[in-house]
Amino acid sequence: MAFTTTVRVRFGDEDHARIVYYPRFFHFFHCAFEDFFDQQGMPYRECLEAGVGWPAVHAEADYQRPVRFGDDLVFVVTLPRIGKSSATFRYVGTIAGDDAPAVVGTVIVACIDMKTMRAQEIPARYRALFEPHVLPG
Amino acid sequence: MAFTTTVRVRFGDEDHARIVYYPRFFHFFHCAFEDFFDQQGMPYRECLEAGVGWPAVHAEADYQRPVRFGDDLVFVVTLPRIGKSSATFRYVGTIAGDDAPAVVGTVIVACIDMKTMRAQEIPARYRALFEPHVLPG
Amino acid sequence: MAFTTTVRVRFGDEDHARIVYYPRFFHFFHCAFEDFFDQQGMPYRECLEAGVGWPAVHAEADYQRPVRFGDDLVFVVTLPRIGKSSATFRYVGTIAGDDAPAVVGTVIVACIDMKTMRAQEIPARYRALFEPHVLPG
Amino acid sequence: MAFTTTVRVRFGDEDHARIVYYPRFFHFFHCAFEDFFDQQGMPYRECLEAGVGWPAVHAEADYQRPVRFGDDLVFVVTLPRIGKSSATFRYVGTIAGDDAPAVVGTVIVACIDMKTMRAQEIPARYRALFEPHVLPG
Repeated sequence: MAFTTTVRVRFGDEDHARIVYYPRFFHFFHCAFEDFFDQQGMPYRECLEAGVGWPAVHAEADYQRPVRFGDDLVFVVTLPRIGKSSATFRYVGTIAGDDAPAVVGTVIVACIDMKTMRAQEIPARYRALFEPHVLPG
Repeated sequence: MAFTTTVRVRFGDEDHARIVYYPRFFHFFHCAFEDFFDQQGMPYRECLEAGVGWPAVHAEADYQRPVRFGDDLVFVVTLPRIGKSSATFRYVGTIAGDDAPAVVGTVIVACIDMKTMRAQEIPARYRALFEPHVLPG
Repeated sequence: MAFTTTVRVRFGDEDHARIVYYPRFFHFFHCAFEDFFDQQGMPYRECLEAGVGWPAVHAEADYQRPVRFGDDLVFVVTLPRIGKSSATFRYVGTIAGDDAPAVVGTVIVACIDMKTMRAQEIPARYRALFEPHVLPG
Repeated sequence: MAFTTTVRVRFGDEDHARIVYYPRFFHFFHCAFEDFFDQQGMPYRECLEAGVGWPAVHAEADYQRPVRFGDDLVFVVTLPRIGKSSATFRYVGTIAGDDAPAVVGTVIVACIDMKTMRAQEIPARYRALFEPHVLPG
């Protein structure tokens, strides 16, 4: 089951080279991450208010096609791996109308207790949110 | 007495039109605002840790010359007005080597108690920090 | 006739004080500006490709209520004034569900020829796009 | 021979969790990348004006310690690998005063001709700029 969300690329997302400034894609990944929670009935803000945080411990991206402002970037979000207290999110972003991805990102997040800032086991309700999106083997 | 600080303009600060994306200048103003505290011996972080916050209530900018990445933008920071619980900062930014400003900004900040988020009188030590920079009549 | 568009406020839009970093609102205004073109059938990218640019010459904002991530900020876009080669856009942003605006912005843009970077008269097709949104009275 | 440069972490670089928003570190890497050119006598802007571009094809980061506004992040920049038409930059960022890195980034850039946007061999003058910074064995 694939979760999909769209990010609109803006005028200010481009840099001097007139393509999206590469750090911006990590912001786009985070937008897709928030949407993943919000659009499946577990608002990300409430998650944090409940004291459950998800800081990135590793992030990477492969840039495969230039992306420009005015493009709609469609992200498919999956989880290649769910650990005890961390989870790996994959973001495959394709420009609407294109047949191959423009960018592929992988972000590993730790699950922490926002009060102590220490790792904790992923609470059951988030595990239940994640599991349907685990990539089949 | 003029407080001066320099902001380096970066590759990613430009937008599609290959000049600085206009919202970025407000970030530059904030950098100059932080430097104003930090470089005069009252680190901005400590100010906030002490519970004194300075949210903007009004901000404006006039754009007079295009600014490009690689430029050094030299800001002169003055205070046209200090009120009881608010202060007006002016940021005049000139590209190093130029003879006229590229941007002029004005930001009015309120002084608040970070715990209650309510306005408070500007504490004496900040008033003392500000007063030497009031623009003469 | 009011043009309306919504900006989703993101986790990374907040700053250390846990409210939206004030320069971000000018980015939100620009998003609404792009939407104003795009959603009325005149894509902003095509406008620029046709050599018509709209750099800001003045921008200002009044901050009236704190905005937080997870909020949807609904912008009403109007034009208080259309000049010969400039136009004034107003952005009134209200958090979805609220009864009073959180932020009010005003941005004056010049109309320029992107090849020469000089001011030009607003072309008729953009004047026609703008005029229905002039504020009465 | 290690190239070193410092990035000041700003109030607006933090996110809701009151640590640096993880995508910002890629912006910091790019600042260090620009400094690498600028401070060794080959201004990055001139490089682009000469038609030589360096888009990222892969970027990654490991986050090892939280970074907060007011920190100075000292980056050591090295090149683990120089290929025919690409180069790998490593950015090891340590908070001033700390004894272990807070973030380690790796960015692979392609060398392109900005007119055709196609890969080209790294020109000799840039190869000469890079080679003293190749990591030993």
